[in-house]
Amino acid sequence: MKNSIGRELSDDLMRNYQPFKSTKIGNPIVQRVAPKVRVSTGDNKVTDSLADVVRKTVKDGMTISFHHHLREGDFIFNLVMDEIIKQGIQDLTLAPSSLTNVMNDKVIEAIKAGTITHIESSGMRGTLGEAVSHGILKDPVILRSHGSRARAIENGETKIDVAFLGVPNADRCGNANGMTGDAAFGSLGYALIDAQYADQVVLLTDNIVDYPNTPASIKQTQVDYVVKVDQVGDPDRIGSGATRFTKNPKDLKIAKMVNNVIVHSPYFKQGFSFQTGSGGAALAVARFLKQSMLDKQITASFALGGITTPIVDLMNDGLVQKVMDVQDFDKGAADSMKNNQNQQEIDASWYADADNKGAMVDQLDVCILSALEIDTDFNVNVMTGSNGVLRGAIGGHQDAATAKMTIISAPLTRGRIATVVPKVGTVVTPGESIDVLVTEAGVAVNPARQDLIAAFKKVPSIPLVTIEELQQKAEAIVGKPEPLQHTNKTVAMIEYRDGTIIDEVKEIKD
Amino acid sequence: MKNSIGRELSDDLMRNYQPFKSTKIGNPIVQRVAPKVRVSTGDNKVTDSLADVVRKTVKDGMTISFHHHLREGDFIFNLVMDEIIKQGIQDLTLAPSSLTNVMNDKVIEAIKAGTITHIESSGMRGTLGEAVSHGILKDPVILRSHGSRARAIENGETKIDVAFLGVPNADRCGNANGMTGDAAFGSLGYALIDAQYADQVVLLTDNIVDYPNTPASIKQTQVDYVVKVDQVGDPDRIGSGATRFTKNPKDLKIAKMVNNVIVHSPYFKQGFSFQTGSGGAALAVARFLKQSMLDKQITASFALGGITTPIVDLMNDGLVQKVMDVQDFDKGAADSMKNNQNQQEIDASWYADADNKGAMVDQLDVCILSALEIDTDFNVNVMTGSNGVLRGAIGGHQDAATAKMTIISAPLTRGRIATVVPKVGTVVTPGESIDVLVTEAGVAVNPARQDLIAAFKKVPSIPLVTIEELQQKAEAIVGKPEPLQHTNKTVAMIEYRDGTIIDEVKEIKD
Repeated sequence: MKNSIGRELSDDLMRNYQPFKSTKIGNPIVQRVAPKVRVSTGDNKVTDSLADVVRKTVKDGMTISFHHHLREGDFIFNLVMDEIIKQGIQDLTLAPSSLTNVMNDKVIEAIKAGTITHIESSGMRGTLGEAVSHGILKDPVILRSHGSRARAIENGETKIDVAFLGVPNADRCGNANGMTGDAAFGSLGYALIDAQYADQVVLLTDNIVDYPNTPASIKQTQVDYVVKVDQVGDPDRIGSGATRFTKNPKDLKIAKMVNNVIVHSPYFKQGFSFQTGSGGAALAVARFLKQSMLDKQITASFALGGITTPIVDLMNDGLVQKVMDVQDFDKGAADSMKNNQNQQEIDASWYADADNKGAMVDQLDVCILSALEIDTDFNVNVMTGSNGVLRGAIGGHQDAATAKMTIISAPLTRGRIATVVPKVGTVVTPGESIDVLVTEAGVAVNPARQDLIAAFKKVPSIPLVTIEELQQKAEAIVGKPEPLQHTNKTVAMIEYRDGTIIDEVKEIKD
Repeated sequence: MKNSIGRELSDDLMRNYQPFKSTKIGNPIVQRVAPKVRVSTGDNKVTDSLADVVRKTVKDGMTISFHHHLREGDFIFNLVMDEIIKQGIQDLTLAPSSLTNVMNDKVIEAIKAGTITHIESSGMRGTLGEAVSHGILKDPVILRSHGSRARAIENGETKIDVAFLGVPNADRCGNANGMTGDAAFGSLGYALIDAQYADQVVLLTDNIVDYPNTPASIKQTQVDYVVKVDQVGDPDRIGSGATRFTKNPKDLKIAKMVNNVIVHSPYFKQGFSFQTGSGGAALAVARFLKQSMLDKQITASFALGGITTPIVDLMNDGLVQKVMDVQDFDKGAADSMKNNQNQQEIDASWYADADNKGAMVDQLDVCILSALEIDTDFNVNVMTGSNGVLRGAIGGHQDAATAKMTIISAPLTRGRIATVVPKVGTVVTPGESIDVLVTEAGVAVNPARQDLIAAFKKVPSIPLVTIEELQQKAEAIVGKPEPLQHTNKTVAMIEYRDGTIIDEVKEIKD
């Protein structure tokens, strides 16, 4: 079977799925689901014994979840998984909001012990990405965007039995937020969905505060247990990995060009909105955008998505009215939320669920996203490396790409590897939703956007090229790569944000 | 059939209900429900035409809802019902959070037109109470507490097809709160449940604000239409009716005695919590309590429930840490919320749903409630007058009565009518959950609370009497009333907060 963008899908796996058709969601009627609640007056939720709580809540075959708001600074995942492995529980589906490197070894251990047999995630990197790509799991991993995870939980595709959620504060009844405490990480955006929809919700915190704790991003009505632990995490390591600020001259050149594209687009006007996200040059865009906004005396109505300190600074400078915050990518952004009413915590559904009465991403004017690969159909891969191994995360990529103008910001090549290619190894975000590619070697506009081509043609500082030219230029630098060697086994299914299958990832043949 | 407190229930009506057994809720597992969502990007929710929206959303036989946060200042209910009647829609179930006097004539008109055939509410007064008590509806009205309404909506007993919610501000996508705008009424606590569970949500506002509107008590993900109207309501009339501050010397005497009872109870200690509610002497308690807290250097962890200016003042004086606010009873309390992070908006489920993982009322130490009648078993009636006519509201009465010490504050008699009676006309809150009755003629403690009797015996300023003595004293003043004349028809079923039936109200025979 092939989907509408020509990706080959396995017939046997597609029995329970629809193939990707279009980025248009339409107006279906969706029946949402709701959790089972074990009624209690909730007088005694606090316990020191994680072992007891795991024993009471987790059974063979269940689906368990975690959030990844603490990213590489998370101490909770390993603590809980360790206890679950120790108790010999089998055949769990692991359905976290994403998986960071700090969790990898424990997941592999749990897979080898038979504790984890299925995984649903947004991302997968490092040793776990390698292991899954080499077939450690019998069934394929399901990879979804943040918005699609909210969708799947809200319509029952993913039914979470027990959510284990690390929080930097909680009162004795389970009212909690992400804003204060030693491990404060700001927005609880992804975890709010787990708290709302999981049958059983276990909070883990190193900081029991007076009742009633407010603001209560997670409410006592959602929480079964509050486990006191020594340390929830290290918030200084939220900002590690892909979220560091660039000093690379090539990245800065790209960032400046991205800003040129924004400023000369029809969307750069009073009250516009944008999402910069994290990663490489995207972060630096905020710097250039600030100057352009000051120069043109334009302010933005909102900035969206994973939030960084440069975005919070724009808000504090009065250049951005509201910061709509589903996740904080660094400690500065995290610390700012509690003191600024205009930095609004939003849940993953409000952020990006496609099966909604409208999400924030549907109102987004400009979005800057990154890419591991982009092909001449503008399809983007943020999930597999040039060697075909899982090493990325969908994140909000598919979701935010619904913006009125979506810009991919990427270098033409990385080392000996082309970014612009004839055909991406894995399609995550379809070219239909990508409008502009900015590289250091020129700016390519999707031919579907003749309006943008016309606008940019008038601007000398925007070097327009075709994406084919960029692909050929990249190939001229790094040469044609050897085709990848795969087996027939599918190790990951890539869902589009509406739950259809946009691509599959095959097992690596070494 | 009789329930556990001996109230006669009609066998034919009890086919779909359980009789009331106990105030203990236990630990059932409850499957919650969720709405159907009509998916859209939500770009065009604003309209001037209420007629269009009613045509698109309301069909014969549906259940529609409204909130009563604007109380006697509400302009929305009549506007919407008028349009629904005009369009000839039939056989609707009206399920608002409560009904205030300003809505009565329109409800009666809708009943006569066949538009409304069933009603579920918390309260019913005036001309509508008279009409229903005289049998204007074929089937009995269902009367529930605020917590029980949340429970019924959350478990699907009440399925709202269309919620019409007046708000003092909204953006073009439906993000809204109760805190700013000409018609600001503060907490949207009851309406939040409708916004979360109704299949279709229609906001009505006189104040379209910039997108994105924050804080968003109601979120764009919940809203189908935003109807622009001339005026949502008159917030100066929120505080009318039962919420006026007393100057009556008898009420003040009772309030002072209530304060004595609180101060000499085992619950008056650092970090205690309380709910005063509205109505008569209860409001004045805040005055006396303030002085006692200052004298003893005691502060409260939270005040709960419908919030009044005197409660907000306690917060501003540092005597109450958090105000947990499901509804504001006056403009002062409403205006305060936007400026004070410690005045936390809570929804009706968090406030008081019994089928929960713990609600705020479960953590309440002291609660002061009013009564139309209380009998020698401490059963309380807040729903029917001495003539048997519906003229009150359950409100949060049953819910807050779960406090560790529940005090009924009431005059022994009102005019020629006894408050303390051998047997209340209608049981709303069972005596099992009432601990103390304070009247101007003495304080009666429920014999089940020997601990409180022992504590108060030592206090000269608390004149302990038995409730039988109070009842006899009342009877000596006003005499024995003639027994009420009823027909066999049931006009209202009174649910206890767990959904069991605690009593029925019969049709008046004139």
